[in-house]
Amino acid sequence: MTVSPFAPTSVAEPAAVGGVRIATAQAGIKRAGRTDVLLMAFDEGTTVAGTYTRSRCPSAPVEWCRERTPAGVARALLVNAGNANAFTGRKGREATASSAELVAQALGIETAHVFLASTGVIGEPLDAGKFASVMDETASRLAPSGWADAARAIMTTDTFPKVASRTVSLGGTPTTLVGIAKGAGMIAPDMATMLSFVATDAAVPAEVLQPMLTDAVAASFNRITVDSDTSTSDTVLAFATGASGAPIGEAQGGDARAFCAALSDLLLELAHLVVKDGEGCTKFVTVAVRGAESDASASRIARAIADSPLVKTAIAGEDANWGRVVMAVGKAGEPADRDRLAIWFGDVRVAADGERDPDYSEAAASAVMREPEIVLTVDLGLGDGEGVVWTCDLTKAYVAINGDYRT
Amino acid sequence: MTVSPFAPTSVAEPAAVGGVRIATAQAGIKRAGRTDVLLMAFDEGTTVAGTYTRSRCPSAPVEWCRERTPAGVARALLVNAGNANAFTGRKGREATASSAELVAQALGIETAHVFLASTGVIGEPLDAGKFASVMDETASRLAPSGWADAARAIMTTDTFPKVASRTVSLGGTPTTLVGIAKGAGMIAPDMATMLSFVATDAAVPAEVLQPMLTDAVAASFNRITVDSDTSTSDTVLAFATGASGAPIGEAQGGDARAFCAALSDLLLELAHLVVKDGEGCTKFVTVAVRGAESDASASRIARAIADSPLVKTAIAGEDANWGRVVMAVGKAGEPADRDRLAIWFGDVRVAADGERDPDYSEAAASAVMREPEIVLTVDLGLGDGEGVVWTCDLTKAYVAINGDYRT
Repeated sequence: MTVSPFAPTSVAEPAAVGGVRIATAQAGIKRAGRTDVLLMAFDEGTTVAGTYTRSRCPSAPVEWCRERTPAGVARALLVNAGNANAFTGRKGREATASSAELVAQALGIETAHVFLASTGVIGEPLDAGKFASVMDETASRLAPSGWADAARAIMTTDTFPKVASRTVSLGGTPTTLVGIAKGAGMIAPDMATMLSFVATDAAVPAEVLQPMLTDAVAASFNRITVDSDTSTSDTVLAFATGASGAPIGEAQGGDARAFCAALSDLLLELAHLVVKDGEGCTKFVTVAVRGAESDASASRIARAIADSPLVKTAIAGEDANWGRVVMAVGKAGEPADRDRLAIWFGDVRVAADGERDPDYSEAAASAVMREPEIVLTVDLGLGDGEGVVWTCDLTKAYVAINGDYRT
Repeated sequence: MTVSPFAPTSVAEPAAVGGVRIATAQAGIKRAGRTDVLLMAFDEGTTVAGTYTRSRCPSAPVEWCRERTPAGVARALLVNAGNANAFTGRKGREATASSAELVAQALGIETAHVFLASTGVIGEPLDAGKFASVMDETASRLAPSGWADAARAIMTTDTFPKVASRTVSLGGTPTTLVGIAKGAGMIAPDMATMLSFVATDAAVPAEVLQPMLTDAVAASFNRITVDSDTSTSDTVLAFATGASGAPIGEAQGGDARAFCAALSDLLLELAHLVVKDGEGCTKFVTVAVRGAESDASASRIARAIADSPLVKTAIAGEDANWGRVVMAVGKAGEPADRDRLAIWFGDVRVAADGERDPDYSEAAASAVMREPEIVLTVDLGLGDGEGVVWTCDLTKAYVAINGDYRT
């Protein structure tokens, strides 16, 4: 498989997060020769918040986590690649229960405090026995470092591991946030995302952490699309161990705002990395819509553009095909007045007042299209609404990757 | 360009439609060496009905026709390939007006009775002078036959011309319906379609013809998708010359029902031909959803499946990847209960009761996937709602065709 042109040359191990221990293992779920299991253990007192797919056919681990998130207590996370444990019926529910019990026994914690995520093929039963064979040995290797290995263990069609970190001073105490993500196809998170896990050593009550996470996800993972296909397994979990001793009690305080900003920034970096490793991606595209009747309307139009196969193939072909952008605006079903529309590729205005910009330079637009990162801006000229969605191009490699994924 | 595997080996000229005369021309709008202009003339008394794109950025010819459809009178149709005259502002409106005037002068009819359609690149001004240079000569060649040539003249990325015809006896009088269509990409008609033109020698008042056309389009063109991208130019026009002398006065009579059935059947054949010539198409897929809470809900779920890049690439790869069908059902936003879901490829039930069918044979499913035409059935197990959408697969050829279409 070709590695994304946006892949970093190396992935540095971030600073450890107090209260978090990590280990990965090869359980033979994905394929021989690579890690496919991630185990994280959290110190007592760790809080948790989560956002999940809005799919009507969610995976068994999504249902497991969704039921246990409101209690707000987490002691462990078990993730596997190679099998999504989705659409696996009663067997899927049994696999989540027995997986969680294995973790609880190995770590001496309660089963209800174990969080689970699975990614990979849909519809194949997940054999919890694969976890049993590696659990005790894996638990014995839990260590404070290992975030980069953790990001590698949860990859499916990803071509590089996705890790990001931030530090933020809370009341003079330095705290750390580290997050990982996976996802390359089936990426159109809607109120959720592909798998991403964030941990911090700040002390954040679960009822404060949850709205912070929800807002940060809305501005990051919920604004990306690779292929318009929403996964059965989308999960973002945030864990706060409190090990730094820096507490965040009030959602509106200065420390809370600083923490929120760091969390949002971290998730946005991870979301962008997911797009940059989108299946077959060669271009990272920012679709910015302004002048809409509302922010929601702008976002829906941005998504229509970002999801359009014709816009995405044109970008793959480095073609400043703004006619297809007009098409996508037109099909979005949102208020739009063709004759007020203006479109830019990068800084080059290609269309204005409902027709081609008379000063438009094809050479200048083509130069923009040859860049690896492209900003596509649409001004509807109707109001103050604005919204942004990030996406990648649609290439033959996407078709090749997905034409023979399961077989 | 590779010709669709569904292309017919030859396209027979259908029976002439009384009251209709046809000519095509090379005006240099599309490219040298092929016809790109279609002129049709209708006898006095011809009625017209039309359905158009719901795009908020419609083309200039769509606006021209939409304004003139309510009067219900048509004497001519002018169509060009190579330029959509969409997002062309004031210049686009001027081009439609002067094109219609050219036709009116050449044929000695009123400008308001000329209907127009354009297909091709969006955003480039359409030079009406191209029509002027060929109009009189073209008008001099108008003849009763030429439907197959007409279908060829309006092709863009189509790989074969699309013609269909029906005969129906009305009160003992034989009448004929002939239709043509074009369209291969930017195909996700919603209350409209790509270009299609139908003519009949039955006598049908415009106020009767319009609801018949609307219903027939809803059951045919509005149920196909190639790439989920709705065009700025979607247009279906039906012309009734009355030349056969067979009148249809009442929408509910037996003759009206027979005519409606023939019209619907004709449009369905053309709609299927559009899908079978979808850009890069190698498979024709019927997505049938039943057991939904309503017909509308079933249709939306069928469309989510038919639009999913992951489902379409799996079909291209001849992979019975029903997990992606589950994903698409889940993302549709419609009522669904994962644990009641059943899925078939052809006659092979691959999933039931929320998990893989225990009797499922991979070999049998794979055999179905190797067929050129595949029926994908989903039973939601919730109610009596059903709906069907026709689509094709997503191949590397689609990406290749659309990565360098404009340049």
